[in-house]
Amino acid sequence: MNAPQAVLLDISGVLCDGDQPIPGAVGAVRRLQDRGYPLRLVTNTSRLGHVALHRQLRGMGFDVEPEQIFTAPRAVSRYIEARSLRPFCLIHPALEEEFAPWLHQSAPDAVVVGDAEMRFDYEHLDRAFRLLVEGAPLICMGDNRYFRIRGVLHLDAGPFVRALEYASGATALVLGKPSRNFFASALDDLGVSAGQALMVGDDVQADVLGAQAAGLSACLVRTGKYRTGDEALAPGAHLAADLAEAVAWLG
Amino acid sequence: MNAPQAVLLDISGVLCDGDQPIPGAVGAVRRLQDRGYPLRLVTNTSRLGHVALHRQLRGMGFDVEPEQIFTAPRAVSRYIEARSLRPFCLIHPALEEEFAPWLHQSAPDAVVVGDAEMRFDYEHLDRAFRLLVEGAPLICMGDNRYFRIRGVLHLDAGPFVRALEYASGATALVLGKPSRNFFASALDDLGVSAGQALMVGDDVQADVLGAQAAGLSACLVRTGKYRTGDEALAPGAHLAADLAEAVAWLG
Repeated sequence: MNAPQAVLLDISGVLCDGDQPIPGAVGAVRRLQDRGYPLRLVTNTSRLGHVALHRQLRGMGFDVEPEQIFTAPRAVSRYIEARSLRPFCLIHPALEEEFAPWLHQSAPDAVVVGDAEMRFDYEHLDRAFRLLVEGAPLICMGDNRYFRIRGVLHLDAGPFVRALEYASGATALVLGKPSRNFFASALDDLGVSAGQALMVGDDVQADVLGAQAAGLSACLVRTGKYRTGDEALAPGAHLAADLAEAVAWLG
Repeated sequence: MNAPQAVLLDISGVLCDGDQPIPGAVGAVRRLQDRGYPLRLVTNTSRLGHVALHRQLRGMGFDVEPEQIFTAPRAVSRYIEARSLRPFCLIHPALEEEFAPWLHQSAPDAVVVGDAEMRFDYEHLDRAFRLLVEGAPLICMGDNRYFRIRGVLHLDAGPFVRALEYASGATALVLGKPSRNFFASALDDLGVSAGQALMVGDDVQADVLGAQAAGLSACLVRTGKYRTGDEALAPGAHLAADLAEAVAWLG
């Protein structure tokens, strides 16, 4: 592996567990910054706006700028901006500020789906379906099946993406991790090539294999959702106990 | 083919188009009754209760009894009755009377899905999902993709069935046409065996091929959703211009 020139850090499970920083992670991020590594903190979350996410990270002690955070919603907004699309947005209220320029389209020509929660109702899905039948592309922030809050499972966006695909015959373009597009978009933001960047994550599929498929080096940490044996799935990745150890290894 | 002892008639596209009887259909049903054929009028609709459906048919001139109508919701209620299940029902308000014995379960052990329309919201789907994760079976009235009302396409139950399957890993048991279970249940209602019954339908997949797979004889009529060439898909079926011609052929 060439020495990385820039680093991407997954947020949940690498920097923090819920609202608690993982031991050593705050210091590790500071050390990366002291050494001048261009950084992006990356996440698929689409239930939290950019400003709130930044506030949450600052609250846990991470001294980062909003520009250093790169999210799946951001990957989607870049995509629709670059193509001058007019999307119908099935998104969480928390993302409305970020998607303000595209809300309330009179003649939508695309469908954007995030984890819309209560907005996943018949009326909104029915509208999205008709746009897809008319040929609008289906652009998604992620297609996770479910997530867990305080021990209770809840539907994520994925089931609704599958529902819209089944009804309309469209195929979703998923722009969150592990898509190649997500990593390409984050690298573009950093101004480095894939071969110059390292991705650190706890999710062997979404973080490590996704990054490797996009041409990045990868480091798997044994925090967050890591399960014993995950490293066997990604033999080319470096393995570290946690972010602190990964940063020490970077030297 | 043996001379059929009993006849199943699809409703939409065979007896009527919307709220208009198909020419000759009222007389054809009367003729079947005059000759003493045990009859079932069968349909997948899950947006209309049994009583309303009967009223609609009477209003068009069909002189049938409620017991002669067999619907996908009826196939489902028979199924849950036979197994003493306590389902959580994601169904249309129009079906509440029929499903009254099973509504408001305190500890559901099954999920029933019909074309629930506005009840397909996040809260209800999320609840259904958790029951499925706990092992409840997913029992569906149909899995059609969409339907058309006054020229406008709308989501049917199928997309929501796929969403729940994707989220939970469960596989839906679909009890509407063309499932073998639907025809078996209707035959059981009639008290005849599959080899003794004829199914008349306009939908080559749901009516004709479904009936044939369940062991019934079948007749495809060129009314309703019939499209030129459909008969090539079901070479074993009799082909008739409409119900009147099919009944004349029965002799």
